[in-house]
Formats: sequence, C-alpha cells, structure tokens
Amino acid sequence: MSITDAQVAAAMAAAISEATAIAVPMNIAIYDDGANLKAFTRMDGALLGSADIAMNKARTAALFGFNTEALYDFVKPGGTSPGFDRTNGGLIVFAGGIPIRDAAGELIGAVGVSGGAVAQDYQVAEAAVASLQFQP
Amino acid sequence: MSITDAQVAAAMAAAISEATAIAVPMNIAIYDDGANLKAFTRMDGALLGSADIAMNKARTAALFGFNTEALYDFVKPGGTSPGFDRTNGGLIVFAGGIPIRDAAGELIGAVGVSGGAVAQDYQVAEAAVASLQFQP
Amino acid sequence: MSITDAQVAAAMAAAISEATAIAVPMNIAIYDDGANLKAFTRMDGALLGSADIAMNKARTAALFGFNTEALYDFVKPGGTSPGFDRTNGGLIVFAGGIPIRDAAGELIGAVGVSGGAVAQDYQVAEAAVASLQFQP
Amino acid sequence: MSITDAQVAAAMAAAISEATAIAVPMNIAIYDDGANLKAFTRMDGALLGSADIAMNKARTAALFGFNTEALYDFVKPGGTSPGFDRTNGGLIVFAGGIPIRDAAGELIGAVGVSGGAVAQDYQVAEAAVASLQFQP
Repeated sequence: MSITDAQVAAAMAAAISEATAIAVPMNIAIYDDGANLKAFTRMDGALLGSADIAMNKARTAALFGFNTEALYDFVKPGGTSPGFDRTNGGLIVFAGGIPIRDAAGELIGAVGVSGGAVAQDYQVAEAAVASLQFQP
Repeated sequence: MSITDAQVAAAMAAAISEATAIAVPMNIAIYDDGANLKAFTRMDGALLGSADIAMNKARTAALFGFNTEALYDFVKPGGTSPGFDRTNGGLIVFAGGIPIRDAAGELIGAVGVSGGAVAQDYQVAEAAVASLQFQP
Repeated sequence: MSITDAQVAAAMAAAISEATAIAVPMNIAIYDDGANLKAFTRMDGALLGSADIAMNKARTAALFGFNTEALYDFVKPGGTSPGFDRTNGGLIVFAGGIPIRDAAGELIGAVGVSGGAVAQDYQVAEAAVASLQFQP
Repeated sequence: MSITDAQVAAAMAAAISEATAIAVPMNIAIYDDGANLKAFTRMDGALLGSADIAMNKARTAALFGFNTEALYDFVKPGGTSPGFDRTNGGLIVFAGGIPIRDAAGELIGAVGVSGGAVAQDYQVAEAAVASLQFQP
C-alpha cells in the first residue's frame, strides 16, 4: 500500500498549519512507499536551500522506515556503519523526516520538513503524521 | 515578483480539477521565477515516469518564459539552435509547460503537467494558468 | 500491489529457460511498481554492456506501464514528444522491457532483457511475463 | 576466472535461506571479479534503502579483495588513507561485503548483504560464501 491523495492532502494541510502557527515558513515533502515524490510545498519565504533537504529527509525516511535522526546512530563516531549517510546518493541523518505507517503498521510513505531549527522541522513533520490519526 | 502560496494553491486546485474532469491522473509541478520547485502533486494513479517530465516542463517554461512546445522551433531540423534542448541539464520541448505572468506581464513562475497525451497535458496546464485570471 | 518474491522467481526462471533454449545468454532485470530493482541476473557469457540496458528497460516499463518499444512512437521523427527518451535520467525506447500486471490489470512491476538481438530480448521478456499466467 | 551461474545460484540460495532462518528480509548482491553486478535479490519486505548498500558492499569487496569492514582501518581516525572511502564513487567500509575466492585462492567475485543489523548482514553474507565450500 502507498499513501493516497486524501492522506497526502491531510498531512500537507496539517504541516502547513503547524508551520503557520509557529511562524516558520517550511519546505514540506511527502514520499510514497517506493521512495518516490508524491507532493511538495515550499511555503512563501521558506529557505530555498531547505527544499532539497526536505525532499531528502522524506526520501531517507521512506527508504529505511526510521525517523531520520535515528539513523545518526549508525554514523556517529563509534557507530556501526561509518559512511552510511553517503549511500543512496546521500542521506539525511538529522531530524525532520518521519515514516508514515498505516493502521496495520505497514510503511506507506514518509514526510520530510526543513526550513527552521531542527526541532521546529521535527515538530511540523510530527503534526503531519499525527493528522493521519492511525492507531497502530 | 514570484508566484505566491495563494496563487500556487489556486493553480494546483484548478489543474487537479481539470485532470479529474477528463479522468487522467496527472503529475503537476509549479516553479517560481527563480526556476525552483514551489509545489508538486502526483495524483493517485498518475504515471510515475511523468513526474520528472512535469517538473522539467515547468522548469523549462520558467527558465525561458515560453510554452515548452514553442521551444521546439529552436531544435527542429533546420532550427537555429541544434542541441538547445540538451542545455540546462536537459529541457523539455513538447507541450505541457506554460509560463505564468502577473497582470503587468512579468514572469512569476510556470506550471508543468504530464501523465496523459500531450494535448491533455497542455489542457490541464492551461486550466492552471487560466485560474489565476490575470488580464495582461 | 508490488510483484512478490514468488512471482519474481517464476519470471526469472522462465526468462533464463527461454534464453537457454535459444542459446543467447541474457541480462534479466525485474523492477517493482515503484520502479526500484527487485532482482537481476547476468547469465554467464551475457554481454556486460547489456546489463545496464536490461535494468533500464525494466525501469522504463515500470515507470510508464508500456512496452519499451511502444514508447518510440513518442520520440520518432514527427512524434509528439521529441526528447522524451532523455527524461528520467535516460529511458530505453526499443524492445525488451515489458510491464507486469496482476489479474486485475494493475501494474505490479516490469521485466527487462538485453543481450541478444532486439527480437530475442523481446522473446525472453515475453516468456518471463507469460510465466505468471495472469488472465486479465 | 569469474564466479559462475551455478556458484551464484548456490550462494544466492544460501543467503536467502539464512535470511529466512533469522527472519530478516535482506538485499543480496553478487558481483564478479570485474566488479560488475552478476545477480541481485531484494527479498519481500527488505529495506528499500539497503539495496544500494548491498550492491556497494559487494562492489567494494570485489574491488579490493577484502571484507568491507577490514577497509575501515584505512579511514578511521589515524588511519593511513583518510578519504579512501570516497574513492571509486563511494565505498562501504562496514561489515556485509565478503570477497569470494576459488580453491586456488583467486578472487572470483564478492557478495554483499544489507537489510538487518550489521552483524546479521555479515552472517548472511558468510552463509553465502560458505555455501561454495572452497577449501583454500
């Protein structure tokens, strides 16, 4: 299963709403379970260079099914997989990419947000995922 | 000036509405006047390979301020600029990318559509541009 | 839905069997519905340069849901979409890539074969798809 | 000499069997002595982003004739070759890639596995190599 138009619309609206609430214009990307782009928004005033990062956060989370920041464990000094973040054409290993799962726990896509402080990016991505109200 | 969130939302909604009306799921991309991606939607069932094409149609139209099909004149046999379409990392020179101008005629962005026959792509892109109701 | 291990094994075995029957060692690639590589075999003696072509044939067929040779219509002289084959990082528009659909007609993946004459490539790809015995 | 179809089939079957035994769906790649892809399988449910890693582990092991984790010595702080892992378009220097040698000790290819914890990847790659029963 892959994320649907209706789910994408809900998640995108929730992300934009949260970004507006904290007054940080964001880049927001949604990928499907095949790690292909499904939807993207660069809000007025969002950092231009963060568009690529938002897309890559969502792609990374879709490719591995983990929050992007969780993948840092693999590459940090002493981690098990030095250079892991240079695979797949370059991955993002800081917060802001979160996988999206259906009610059965299956990966259906991911959201990636960039444009603010990392904690703000995470907060907006979290709002997008929470809007889908799955109860695994 | 660059296309705004409100204009993007109107253009995207019009494109989706037109695609739904003709029952052809489309990839729809909107670029700004800096030839950078502003918004993207791959509708459920839209051809996966047409996502890249939709984005490149919008990028091409934003880069040159012409409908994409108009650029074919440069590269057709006997045209003035053979290989023009291989510049800028590869351009699209068939229909489906249309520049967006403000009331003063200034380029503010472009829309690109792909997923159907070329005439259908053009029709949906046209609907997006028309929704903005500028009167140049 | 995406092609499964069991379907991949059946299709790959059928392709290898057909290639062996005509005594042309082949490169055989199977992609899923997200246009990601699922399985690949380069048979002993298969042309090394045809590995990339087999993969791209399967990728192209998965991206667009058409036999690769059908896409040539878009780019041939007088076709509607000049340069279409340079999108998506470069596509293959000659025979040997065939989409795979389930019993309901939904695209679940594609097979790509390269290593012989184009007609031989097509024959082996066809054998792979036929082995799945869907009756749409 | 290069790894043969029969050896590839045995190694791939052993890897799939071991991955099934530990219930971790894996990406498994086999490269030949020319560091070119010979066979690949992404098992149902295997992490999509680990496909690239499995292929690069096998490629790295085939390029240098060492287990991938052994190459970390070159790039670790104080190692002799900082940046070594950025050569060849990017190498993998953690476990899961193992060279394959014939009875005379000649390099004939390599296997790369990714999709689980690094120790699991190594275990599955080891099973593939062991299946070939060479006695160097």
